[in-house]
Amino acid sequence: MRRVRFSDPAGSVRTGFWTDDGIEFGGRTYDPAEVDVLPPVKPSKIVCVGLNYADHAEEEGMELPDRPMLFLKPPNTVSGHGDTISLPQGKETVEWEAELGVIIGEQCRNVPESEAMDIVEGFTCLNDVSNRDDQRVEQNWVRGKAFDNAAPVGPVVAPTEVVPDDAGIELRVNGEVRQNSGRDQFIFSVEELIAEITAYMTLESGDVISTGTPAGVGPISDGDIVEVEVEGVGVLENEFTRQ
Amino acid sequence: MRRVRFSDPAGSVRTGFWTDDGIEFGGRTYDPAEVDVLPPVKPSKIVCVGLNYADHAEEEGMELPDRPMLFLKPPNTVSGHGDTISLPQGKETVEWEAELGVIIGEQCRNVPESEAMDIVEGFTCLNDVSNRDDQRVEQNWVRGKAFDNAAPVGPVVAPTEVVPDDAGIELRVNGEVRQNSGRDQFIFSVEELIAEITAYMTLESGDVISTGTPAGVGPISDGDIVEVEVEGVGVLENEFTRQ
Repeated sequence: MRRVRFSDPAGSVRTGFWTDDGIEFGGRTYDPAEVDVLPPVKPSKIVCVGLNYADHAEEEGMELPDRPMLFLKPPNTVSGHGDTISLPQGKETVEWEAELGVIIGEQCRNVPESEAMDIVEGFTCLNDVSNRDDQRVEQNWVRGKAFDNAAPVGPVVAPTEVVPDDAGIELRVNGEVRQNSGRDQFIFSVEELIAEITAYMTLESGDVISTGTPAGVGPISDGDIVEVEVEGVGVLENEFTRQ
Repeated sequence: MRRVRFSDPAGSVRTGFWTDDGIEFGGRTYDPAEVDVLPPVKPSKIVCVGLNYADHAEEEGMELPDRPMLFLKPPNTVSGHGDTISLPQGKETVEWEAELGVIIGEQCRNVPESEAMDIVEGFTCLNDVSNRDDQRVEQNWVRGKAFDNAAPVGPVVAPTEVVPDDAGIELRVNGEVRQNSGRDQFIFSVEELIAEITAYMTLESGDVISTGTPAGVGPISDGDIVEVEVEGVGVLENEFTRQ
């Protein structure tokens, strides 16, 4: 069952399930178009992975890391499916990055790889929106990655068993495919990422690990509709504006 | 009035005031030794500033930045006054960094310097505990700065008017002074930091800006008692262990 948070027509926030029939809660089925789909979680932090696909490291001219390259997106970066996102003002190059997001199901620390999937609630789609103007010139990617609404996430949390080990990860801009890869192309697996991250920090229920992006990143233009699709999860769609 | 969050002897979490008589709440005055002082805020993020004192930039062998160098500490880093902190396991060099913390009083974005102090609730003390083993070899300082309990903060939020513009900032290890400087030595003022950070991200009530550390950082050893004192705020004290 794909879990979705939404605001119903009366403005109440509900957690339901997104099925082939629509969004179900409380014995009622809503047309997804008549509700406001919210981010499926309220993370205390998003731990992101840079350079987790060999082809993207190559296009960025960066060497493959010998351990996961980590950076952070705080809660101000979160947006939901269907939200219209204003690009940061005065920045020339703001790019899309399709990613598979791992949703943490329980508070945990020092999780071995062999038990890592036990603390995962499921998977989602995430667009790691990146302001290259600043990212390229700062030590820590704060202006580059942690600006408001730089992490659209959703639309649902899909259980791990419906997302194949080789799940496709695709990004489309105005309907045209720009990124296409799969979970089997990761340099570091979900299990390895969880073990490494929790060796340093406690993860909370609702926290997100974003697993890196494949080749094919590119600049977002005013009015672009960007879709991130993870096989088994669904499609996260956002419009971006320069306003 | 210096605001303090604490857990009373019955385990209830209260927000009171720390006066010369003790900690006051609900018509009762508690001996600070009989309560558990908690972090004075629950930040959604701590935005930290690197290299905000010329003398510390010099001791780290780094050039002075032309704009604030930013990095992030997520909520898992927060600890309170009086807490005993386990240093991250297997790391050789974990260092203290005394800092003045700015507590944000309301949600805000794009705040001009001229209005910056209007959104500040007050000031506190923060120890930006830093794992140099990893910080020195990673692009983004996540393992280096964002590990559990890497941001002891407190003991109180002091109103801005009781913290002078040239407030002293001092750090003592087992009673011996190791850092001593003042707010008038900042490269970027509190107002400049707020304007720059809020140009990129929304700050929430309870968020913290940590304003950088002066010269005199050094390695923490098992059993060290580290005190951070900001003039007008008080003393944040923590014991560190290798367990």
